[in-house]
Amino acid sequence: MTIGVLGAGQLGRMMALAGYPLGLDFLFLDREAGTPAHQVAPSLLGSFTDPALLDELAARCDVVTVDWENVPAAALERLGAGTRIAPPPAALAAAQDRLEEKALFRRLGIPTNRTQPVDSLADLEAAVSAIGLPGVLKTRRLGYDGKGQAVLRRKADIGAAWDALGTAPLLYEQMIDFDYEVSIIGVRGLNGQIAVYPLNRNLHRDGILRLTRAPWRAPKVEAAAQRHVRRVLRAFDYVGVLTIEFFVTKGGVLANEMAPRVHNSGHWTIEGAVTSQFENHIRAISGLPLGATVARGHSAMLNLIGRLPDRAALLAQPGLHWHDYGKSPREGRKLGHLTVVEATAAAADRRAAALLRRLG
Amino acid sequence: MTIGVLGAGQLGRMMALAGYPLGLDFLFLDREAGTPAHQVAPSLLGSFTDPALLDELAARCDVVTVDWENVPAAALERLGAGTRIAPPPAALAAAQDRLEEKALFRRLGIPTNRTQPVDSLADLEAAVSAIGLPGVLKTRRLGYDGKGQAVLRRKADIGAAWDALGTAPLLYEQMIDFDYEVSIIGVRGLNGQIAVYPLNRNLHRDGILRLTRAPWRAPKVEAAAQRHVRRVLRAFDYVGVLTIEFFVTKGGVLANEMAPRVHNSGHWTIEGAVTSQFENHIRAISGLPLGATVARGHSAMLNLIGRLPDRAALLAQPGLHWHDYGKSPREGRKLGHLTVVEATAAAADRRAAALLRRLG
Repeated sequence: MTIGVLGAGQLGRMMALAGYPLGLDFLFLDREAGTPAHQVAPSLLGSFTDPALLDELAARCDVVTVDWENVPAAALERLGAGTRIAPPPAALAAAQDRLEEKALFRRLGIPTNRTQPVDSLADLEAAVSAIGLPGVLKTRRLGYDGKGQAVLRRKADIGAAWDALGTAPLLYEQMIDFDYEVSIIGVRGLNGQIAVYPLNRNLHRDGILRLTRAPWRAPKVEAAAQRHVRRVLRAFDYVGVLTIEFFVTKGGVLANEMAPRVHNSGHWTIEGAVTSQFENHIRAISGLPLGATVARGHSAMLNLIGRLPDRAALLAQPGLHWHDYGKSPREGRKLGHLTVVEATAAAADRRAAALLRRLG
Repeated sequence: MTIGVLGAGQLGRMMALAGYPLGLDFLFLDREAGTPAHQVAPSLLGSFTDPALLDELAARCDVVTVDWENVPAAALERLGAGTRIAPPPAALAAAQDRLEEKALFRRLGIPTNRTQPVDSLADLEAAVSAIGLPGVLKTRRLGYDGKGQAVLRRKADIGAAWDALGTAPLLYEQMIDFDYEVSIIGVRGLNGQIAVYPLNRNLHRDGILRLTRAPWRAPKVEAAAQRHVRRVLRAFDYVGVLTIEFFVTKGGVLANEMAPRVHNSGHWTIEGAVTSQFENHIRAISGLPLGATVARGHSAMLNLIGRLPDRAALLAQPGLHWHDYGKSPREGRKLGHLTVVEATAAAADRRAAALLRRLG
């Protein structure tokens, strides 16, 4: 069985490394050669919208999935004529547009922050009046890791925010005064079986995930997050892994965004859960039974951003797991991650704090 | 850094899958295309003795290791002129010849069974007289998984055994009345650091490993095995993973054979130890610090031989890890393995027994 993957980044790379032991083959499609996944699996090279490449991918693969959720709808449609796509294109479409995503959350009874579409400076002024300050102006599409966002704290910020982002369709969001951020990762099999990983507590810096600790023990928060992710999985007859990020506030959780794919906050599952998110995604889309999502100990996962630290020095630490994605260094780029698994949450927290200090 | 590997079987495949997250590249050399390792990494195709291929491998790799210990000495010599080889060729040479191997054990004070070289029918008769019956006539070179062996129970078996094997250099070994079989896996880094995995208890059937349970709690046996493997590692200034198999008898352990490589009885370490034998071998030969060899729970590893069982049915069992090597089915061929990790040895034993029954 051959799994096709649109996008050949680190998520695809880790899918392939998890899928090979299951006896599966992989074929990627990406614009460039030498991508993280191309280093470990064959890849078709060219545009995501090249009909000939899409037809070849469909013909050679039993199912096609994504490493990157922003694959154009036209590409998915073309692929869908020739093969099975998982997760379902409708879920990808919803996740591609922040406004649709928020509408989906509301439709499914999942609490989220207030938003309003912004297509003109007047819209923005109206949205700021209706929702209040502070708030965030965001592009509806293609934002990630804090890109495509402008924070508005005062009315005087409206002009600059509009000037920075006003060429694309936008939305204005209420800025949430949250205690902390969490994410939940669920997976649904081809037969409807659902499994959910323990809750992740996430720390972002400059809009990029720095640290995830899991399982995060917050029973009420976890129960709500679990309920919400199951609801989204069922709503789409979803197949594969789905992630939802939440703000935790005094009043409960508020859904921030969803990712219709394996997620950075789930990288700890490679060593820290019985079955990794990557293996479970591949199991799900291949029609195999899901694996146990139970945690093995207490994990901390730290992203390696911009440049890799001294590998040998860090590998000398007992039980430190190193994940290099094979990318060239660049400011703000995720190049790899580290995971440590400890017997207690306190020990994992101490190691995470020491590693955060060390990584700077 | 690029790791070269002679032989592209399942051991090489699992090395590559463990080495990619460390940021390493791989290049294999094997006679055939489509091998287990070639499915996940590039491979040069041709003979192990082709000087041009060996020179290319040496030129493209920072270090060369083996998936198969019977690489001809001439190939290692040629390679050694152009790159670093790990483990050291002297250890490979000793492991290639059962008689040298036994001599090594005796030289290092490691108890082993009695052996005598056999190059003629008269030698065999003399060996049987000296060592007694029952015994095993074995080829000195190239035997594995029970191949190249004949058991002698009575004097009348001498003729048939000689007829079956008499074309190659042989040795006659005392057959040991053992309680059970164990193996120990040690690893030595480029800087001399040594780490040893917990003891494995192994069950063979028809000369092929069927089941490994680890950690096997037998403190005296483990202490002796640890001492012996450390002695061999030091004797060769060894770099990489080394395995020694022992018979456990009333009088203590007797070394049966050594493998200068990662070993089938260490496959459980992928999920069952903090650092797998594959990762530690790659760390060692790359000059990286060794990872912790501590067990995570109690593991049972079962080989999948001849044909693969129903994957979906087995993956429905919680916590079952499936490893398919991507080989075509053939009688007696190792096609993959299963690992389960449980909180107690008793639970792991129960699952192992149930799985053994199921696999037949």
